[in-house]
Parts: sequence; structure tokens; C-alpha cells
Amino acid sequence: MRSSGLWLMAPAFVLLAGTASGNDELIKLSKDPNQWVIPSGDYANTRYSTLNQITKDNVKNLRPLWTFSTGVLRGHEGGPLVIGDVMYLSTPFPNNVFALDLNNNGRILWKYEPKQDPTVIPVMCCDTVNRGVAYADGKIFLHQADTTLVALDAKTGKELWSVKNGDPKKGETGTSAPLVVKDKVLVGISGGEFGVQAHVTAYNTKDGSRAWRAYSEGPDDQILFDANTTELGKPVGKDSSIKTWQGDQWKIGGGGTWGWISYDPQLNLIYYGSGNPSTWNPVQRPGDNKWSMTIFARNPDTGIAKWAYQMTPHDQWDYDGVNEMILVDVNVKGQPTKALVHFDRNGFGYTLDRATGELLVAEKYDPTVNWATKVDMDKSSRTYGRPQVVPQYSTEHQGQDVNTKGICPAALGTKDQQPAAYSPDTGLFYVPTNHVCMDYEPFRVSYTAGQPYVGATLSMYPPPGKDIMGNFIAWDAKTGKIVWSLPEQFSVWSGALATAGGVVFYGTLEGYLKAVDAKTGKELYKFKTPSGIIGNVTTYEHGGKQYVAILSGVGGWAGIGLAAGLTDPTAGLGAVGGYAALKNYTSLGGQLTVFALPGS
Amino acid sequence: MRSSGLWLMAPAFVLLAGTASGNDELIKLSKDPNQWVIPSGDYANTRYSTLNQITKDNVKNLRPLWTFSTGVLRGHEGGPLVIGDVMYLSTPFPNNVFALDLNNNGRILWKYEPKQDPTVIPVMCCDTVNRGVAYADGKIFLHQADTTLVALDAKTGKELWSVKNGDPKKGETGTSAPLVVKDKVLVGISGGEFGVQAHVTAYNTKDGSRAWRAYSEGPDDQILFDANTTELGKPVGKDSSIKTWQGDQWKIGGGGTWGWISYDPQLNLIYYGSGNPSTWNPVQRPGDNKWSMTIFARNPDTGIAKWAYQMTPHDQWDYDGVNEMILVDVNVKGQPTKALVHFDRNGFGYTLDRATGELLVAEKYDPTVNWATKVDMDKSSRTYGRPQVVPQYSTEHQGQDVNTKGICPAALGTKDQQPAAYSPDTGLFYVPTNHVCMDYEPFRVSYTAGQPYVGATLSMYPPPGKDIMGNFIAWDAKTGKIVWSLPEQFSVWSGALATAGGVVFYGTLEGYLKAVDAKTGKELYKFKTPSGIIGNVTTYEHGGKQYVAILSGVGGWAGIGLAAGLTDPTAGLGAVGGYAALKNYTSLGGQLTVFALPGS
Repeated sequence: MRSSGLWLMAPAFVLLAGTASGNDELIKLSKDPNQWVIPSGDYANTRYSTLNQITKDNVKNLRPLWTFSTGVLRGHEGGPLVIGDVMYLSTPFPNNVFALDLNNNGRILWKYEPKQDPTVIPVMCCDTVNRGVAYADGKIFLHQADTTLVALDAKTGKELWSVKNGDPKKGETGTSAPLVVKDKVLVGISGGEFGVQAHVTAYNTKDGSRAWRAYSEGPDDQILFDANTTELGKPVGKDSSIKTWQGDQWKIGGGGTWGWISYDPQLNLIYYGSGNPSTWNPVQRPGDNKWSMTIFARNPDTGIAKWAYQMTPHDQWDYDGVNEMILVDVNVKGQPTKALVHFDRNGFGYTLDRATGELLVAEKYDPTVNWATKVDMDKSSRTYGRPQVVPQYSTEHQGQDVNTKGICPAALGTKDQQPAAYSPDTGLFYVPTNHVCMDYEPFRVSYTAGQPYVGATLSMYPPPGKDIMGNFIAWDAKTGKIVWSLPEQFSVWSGALATAGGVVFYGTLEGYLKAVDAKTGKELYKFKTPSGIIGNVTTYEHGGKQYVAILSGVGGWAGIGLAAGLTDPTAGLGAVGGYAALKNYTSLGGQLTVFALPGS
Repeated sequence: MRSSGLWLMAPAFVLLAGTASGNDELIKLSKDPNQWVIPSGDYANTRYSTLNQITKDNVKNLRPLWTFSTGVLRGHEGGPLVIGDVMYLSTPFPNNVFALDLNNNGRILWKYEPKQDPTVIPVMCCDTVNRGVAYADGKIFLHQADTTLVALDAKTGKELWSVKNGDPKKGETGTSAPLVVKDKVLVGISGGEFGVQAHVTAYNTKDGSRAWRAYSEGPDDQILFDANTTELGKPVGKDSSIKTWQGDQWKIGGGGTWGWISYDPQLNLIYYGSGNPSTWNPVQRPGDNKWSMTIFARNPDTGIAKWAYQMTPHDQWDYDGVNEMILVDVNVKGQPTKALVHFDRNGFGYTLDRATGELLVAEKYDPTVNWATKVDMDKSSRTYGRPQVVPQYSTEHQGQDVNTKGICPAALGTKDQQPAAYSPDTGLFYVPTNHVCMDYEPFRVSYTAGQPYVGATLSMYPPPGKDIMGNFIAWDAKTGKIVWSLPEQFSVWSGALATAGGVVFYGTLEGYLKAVDAKTGKELYKFKTPSGIIGNVTTYEHGGKQYVAILSGVGGWAGIGLAAGLTDPTAGLGAVGGYAALKNYTSLGGQLTVFALPGS
């Protein structure tokens, strides 16, 4: 085992931090509602726009104004950026990037076509998605499927530099959108189903040189934990990760970092979550498997963790913790709080103090969640902050080669990567959710680099009762209660958008873009786009007109059956069977639809 | 050589004709403007609708109402059928067929997925297009790329029967829409670039058994010519085809039949054209090469030709004669005429008496046409009805291995398969045209079954002057004059639609659906669809509302560079270079967009 040298190195990192320049342009642009300059809208990941030309009264008149085919089929997650007169768009594998002229109905200004080895495709667990590009300093940053991070000249599409972030031959792939913080571009990695040792890495935007890398598990100098790193207010101590693994299992421990990253410039902290420990067979990897399934708060200059909170110790269900962290300053239980709100795959909606990592709220945001009774909120308890697991739904308790039935939620969670939105006008969170349960049978699997290291067979299906697989909900994070809930036939796999016009937007797997009243959830408008929507709704203003843009292109984990042409119900990590009926509603696609109100 | 036994067989065919039942349902449906039951709109191929809810005054308010991704990329020619509450749609290879529910924004009622050997793809000369399905008697007829003709139950999509119309291993492929006439489904074949002996074949709709087959060239019993068959009013006599070929060259003589078929129920005649003689090197195949480049009028019950007219004897430019024949009853030169109007690839717009085959008008419909000075209209002339070829642009005269420059139009013609429309309200034809010239260098090629038998290298480019490659024109067939002409950056490769609302629609290769004033050509509306349009605009009424539908999906010959990812300028039979700039405007796609006016 390597020594945990970071305890000694910490002062050096602090010095480095002082040299990091701010990124005034990006912060300024991200506050301009005419633009959409960060994949998730803003550093706080609120996906809220102050634009209010489209209102709950006139949104019924919305109509497509222009459309654009990306020329690529399969799942289109993420969404475009808008900077000035130009929209930037990336596609699923092969990850082409387009710069489109907003003054000319999306005429192509340039197109970047990476050359990638297609053998990466079968290594991508849950479709060949790409969640968008990042922008800073006149550069567009693309995170390719093969983990290459490329910087392009935003004006010409010319490649400025590129760097390899991982190795697809080991199962490492790229699907996430990068995030630029100051002079660094941050990028995670996928591969929890292949036993990767996942990490978030910061590269200098200037030349692609590596600034730091923080693994999800490993010795302290790899996970960048120091003496001040805490969990739930207490220092985690030395070797906090490796002592929760058997032997060297942390080296193939997963903890994928393929979700969204948030940033608080005042606290100078970034936030993101890690995914499932590898393998999916819990019997095979004793221990808490830290820091899988964890929310991290790290210093963006050094990577050092200020705090961490493991939501699902020793995962037995694939409840990745990668979903976005939404940073809002609100009253929680009467106290003004710099909050972090997170809707986890495990079915709990968490509210934490993002400065300290203190756990404030943890409540189920779908009533069918049954694998745990609750999260222990008793600070004096030995199990404080841990979910209280129900043995009936514990795949470890039931044991290897036993099919544990009726676990809710399914592996793809009460919510997956599809980002929620927050409106300061209503104080509500708008959350696209899955309403799916599963049977889960773990089995012994041996590790071979680049081969699936899953070790479980799944099947997914709607909970008993109404035959629906999703809800779009409004959530009050202050109280941990659902305010309203819109049933959907399939999981809502699209990212939400909240606007100052009192309208909230989301897309459905059948392909509808929907607009609902932010206060009541009343449906105000819908439009059937060419293909199922798993992209994230964005809005911007151009030439005095507010636009709403959405990518169509069914796929992602929920749509993997359609996207990859799979028919065995247990294929696609169990998703194929549950979502088989999708084929009656939509076909593969890859289109952008841009909406606006009539008139000039 | 086989004997021409048909001269004796003719009486037997006449008896057969008496047993053919009418198809009252299809004729009735084709006259109901709420439906679109024949690929080209009606038997007369006018592509005119009496629907008038969308007018030249309100079309500016048009907007997409729903959209549908076909799940297939590459060129989407043709368009959907509408019968009752259902829309039927076919895709390019692999030629999936969808039945979409018009009461539910295109929800998929059924999907038919043929299993085809993908080795047919490289045998398709000009993209993997499919121009639509046909309907009759509760059956949907699909003509697959591999030449399989399939009858599907229109309610369930279940396969009822299938028959092989040709052999892709010999270069025979299917791209054309079938046409049902009475109890027969008629289908042509592609392969002029592979030396096929092309034919139109009639299959009984009931069980797929073959009723007749008429070759484009060969002995009389193969081309189904009898003693009464005429050209320009005179009997053609025995062996009219084979005596115009050297030796057995007719056996690999081409004359593809991949265009549209028309039908006149009163005259009981079908009309269609044949394509280029094989090879493209004229030096290699002396003679008139009959009946390539020919308009045929045949009895649909027997296949026997009533008349034929070869527009381009001994082709030297690939001016296929397959473009649609539009059947209109109009005054020509003051005389009420049962006319056939045809805009040929060779740049001449022809008007014939469709009962007799008499040639009435032949005028250039693009002023740049230069390969012939005119068509000889002097009935007393030895060259009556023949184009007067200009030696400078004769690739035969210039000779093998000589690059003849500046020929207009290019091989893809002043118009290709993209069908024109006719409005009885204005008396005008609306013609999507190409405005492209070429350099053409023939070379010796030897025939190998299934291998390209082209024998010419081409490059295409706009004529001198304005840098445009297309025009959408209004044509007065009575006088042979252009009434108005709208320049377009690229060839107009989309089929036109004329309506009683005084609006004419067409699509552009950049992806715009455009609506123009039928009288003046003034642009009234345009919408940028996801991908370049090479489909044909259709209209129908459903639930009291008029809809306009168009397929997007750039490709076809003009878009083959984008569609097949070709970059060599002379690839794609010369189209790649000319249309290279298309990549700045659009990307591959495959989408249906359905438009309507606002309001219920």
C-alpha cells in the first residue's frame, strides 16, 4: 500500500491555491440570463433562469422555431451551451461538436469530429451518451467517450490541446460534462461496472497539464483527504478509505464520477458525488467501501476534500451518488442556511450545510422507497447519518445467488443523472424521477481489466398500483415533502428547467417537451419532439426573444433497449424489460428543437 | 436471340384484361382530400390537394404540431400515406415501415422491420433511399432495397406475402414506390449503373403472383410491344428494341424503372419512364439503345405498350427518363388535350397527348440547357422528335477518355425524381429543379455482374453566373415558358405540393420547408426542419384540421456526399464536389415534421 503522503503535503497545496486566477468572464456570463454558458446553467446547478418573456399565461403559444439534426442516433443526454450568437452542442459517440449560428436558424459555423476507436462503445455501460461541453476563455472543452479531454478554439473549432483522462481498455470511459472553475477544467470518469478506480481530475485550461487528481477510494494522497477533512462534522482520520475495503479491493473499487459538479465561489468549494462500489455483488466486498456513494466538498485549487458524506455505505443496490448537488441559500428548519440539496439514486432527498457537511434533512422523495426505513438523524447515535436498511431488501442479507424481489427503487434510482431545477420564486425543487422497483440477484464475479465487473442480474418494473414508471415532482427541501407530483408513463429522464416566468419545463421518454405551472404543476403546453427526451431543457435570450431548447434522442440507461437494439428483458442491467413498451411511442433520434413564442 | 412471340400472344392478353377488377376503394380514397393514399397523391401525379384551410393569407402562421424520428439516417425521399386515422411511413434502408396514430401525435401502432442483407447498400448507386409505400385492399406494399416486394396487413403490420422482384447480386435494387392499379401492384427496379435489364412488373395484390413483366429493352415478348405499339403516331414495328443495340448488349442495357408511375383509369393506361442505357460510356454501345430514356404508355392489365417515346436516343449524359408523368386535361395550343406533362432530366419539359403519344411541346425549362439546341418538332423531318445534339457537348463526339466540359445540365438533370406539382387553379406546374452543369469523361469499362458498370468520371458545379444550384419554378406547359423562378442555393431535391389554398410547398437541401404564393412565387413561410429535405410534401385533413407533412433527411444523389460520408469530389457519380458546401447547413437526419395552423 502506498503511504498517505498528503498529510504532509497539504501546506504546499495551500500555496498553490493562492496562484489560481479567478474566471471573471465565466462568472459574469453565467449570471447573464441571455447565455447558457455552464452545462447545468450556473455553478449552483439550479437550472433556473431569470428570463420571463415566456410565462405561465402565454406558454401555450410556444412553438418550434427551428430544429437541427445532430446526425447521430442513440441517447442524447445533456444540452447545448449558448454564448453570444453561437450555440455549442455535442453528440453521443462519436462526440461530434457543432457550433451553430443563432442568427441563421442554426447554420453550422464549424463541426469538430473526433477520431475515436469504436471499441469504446461496448465498454459504455448505459448508452453512448455525452452530457455536453464546457466553455471558458474562448475555448470549448469536450470530454470524449474514450476519456480524451479536448480544448477547441470556440471561434474555429480548431483543436488547441488534448489529454487522455483514462483508459477505455480498463473500462474507463467519458460521458460527463466538464466544469471550468477558475483556470482549471474538472472532469470525472465512468466505469463503475468495470472496476475502475474512479477520480475527478483538474487540468489547466491553458495547456491541459494536470493540476490535481482526486480518487474516490485509495490512500489519502490519492483521495486528497487531509487532517481537516470531516464527515458529519468529525475528522475522518487517516486511511479513511482503505480501511473500509478488504485488502486491495479499493484498487478496483469503482466510485464513478460521471455526474454533475457544482461550485460555490464564496466558499471556494466544488461538490460532486461518487458512484457505486465495484462489484455490484455486495457479498464479495465487505466493508463500507468508502468513499463510494459519497458527496465530496473539495477545494478546486488543490482538490483537497473539506468534507465528505457517504450516503449509502456498502451499497447493495447500485445506488450511485453522482446526482447533482444544488447549492441554494435558504432557510432550513427556520435557519438561514448555505444549503446543498441532493436527490440521490437511493430515494432520499438530502439537505446539507454545504459549508460544513452537516446533515439537515434526509427524506424519501418517492413513497415507494423501501430498502431503508429512514436515515438516522440522531447525532448521538452510532449509526448517525446512515440509512436503516431493511433486511428483506438487503441483497447482502439475502445472499449471493438469491433473487431479492421487490426492492424500490430499482438500480437506476428514484432519480438518475437527470438534473432537477430550483426556483427561488417558489422555493421548490422540480425533480424528474423514476418510479421503478427491481429484483436483484448478486453472483460471484472475478475481475478482468476491461471486462464487465457487475456481478448481479436485475429486472425492473413499475411498483404495484398504477402502471407508471415516473413522476415529475415539486419538492420542498426545507421540510422534505412532495408538494405536487405528475405521473408519467415512463421515467422522467430529462433535466428540468425553472424560469422566472413561473413555468417549469421537462421532457419525457416518449418525446414530449412539457411546460407546467411552477406553483401548481398544471400542464400548460406539450409538444411531441422527434424522439424520446433524455436531454436537459435550456433557455436563453437572443435578439430580444426568449428561446427554449431541448435535445431529443431516446436512450440512456432507461432507453438502452431501444438505443442498442437489446431485447433480452434482463439486458441493459435490467432496464430492457421495464422499458420495453417505449418502442410503441418513439424511435431513435438525435435532434435539437428550439422553441419561442410567435411574433418578432 | 429469343423469338418475339408476343405478336401472336396479344389476343390472350386482351382476354385477361377483361377479368381485372376495378379498385373502387382506392379510386374513392384518392379523390378524398382528407387522405393521401397514393404515394404521389393521385393517379395523375398532380400532387394537388383541394384542401384550402391553409391559405396564402394564413400560411405565415403555420407551425409544427408534432414530429417523429424514423430512427434511420441518410436520405429520406418520398413521403407518408394517410388513410383514415393512420399514417404509413417507410424509411431508407433497412426500410422499416411505421403505422402512426394520427389521434395521438404519431404514437406507433406497429412497426415492420425487414431483415435485409446490408451488402445491398454499396449496390445502391445514389443513396439508400426508399420513396414510400403503396396501399390497397387493407394492405400496405413495401418495395425493399433488396427488391423484395412485401404485402403487410395495414391493421397489424403482419406480413401477408412477399416476392423477390430482382437480384441485388446482379446490381438490381429497389428504391421506388409501388403503385396499385386495380388488382395489381406495379413495381420498377433500379440498377442502371450495374447493367441490369430493367423492367416494370405487375404482381397480383391478392397473393403476389406475377401478372406480367415488361422489360425496358429486349425482344418484343420481353418488352411487351405488339403490332399496335406506336412511337410518335407510327407503329414501331418488330424488334424495335433489339435492332437498336449492338449484339446482345441489350441484355445489360439498363433502362432503370425507378421513377414514378401514373395511371389514367379512363384510357386504362399507365405511364412511366425508363432510365439511362448502360454503360455511361456512349462509345461502347452504338445505336439508339431503345427503349432506354423512354416514356411508356402501357395497358395495366396486360403490360402491353400502347405507345412509347424515346426522349434521349443513345444517351451520352445519363439523362434518365424516369421522372414522373403528370396527367392533366388542358388546352394545349388552343386544343382541349388529354395531356401528359413530363420534366425530363435532359432539361426539356415535354407535353404529349397521352392517348396517342403525340408530341405537342418540348421546351427547355432551364435556360442553361446546352447539350441540345432543341427537340425537332417538324413532323416531316427525318429527326422528328429527336433532340438536336450540340457536338461540343456530345460525349460521344468528343470521344472516350476526353473530358467534355461545361455540359448543362449535369447528369442528375435539370430535374431528377423530385416530383413536380400541378395546380388546376393557376394552370401552372411547380417544378423543383437542379441548376448544375458538369464535365464528363467516358472510359471503357467491362461488364461484371454486380459490379458498377458506369464508365464515366464526372464533376458537377453551378453554371457560370450566380452561385446557385437550383431553382423552384412555375412552368406553363401550354406555352413551354417559365412564369416565375425562385433561386435556391442548392438543387431543390424535394417534391412539390400545390393546394387549393393558393399555396405551393417545397423543401430545400438545407432543410427549409417553404410555402410560396402559387400565382407569384412570393415566399410566405419557411421553417428549418432538422435535416435537409429530399422528401415530398404531403397534405391531409384529420379531425377537421389541414396538416402538411414532410420528411427530412439529407441524402439522395445530391446529398450522397453527406449521406455516405464521401469526400473525393468526383465520388458519388460527381455529386460530392458540387454539393460539398451542404455540410455547412445541415447534418444527417430522418424526421417527419407535421405542420398545422394554430387553434383547434
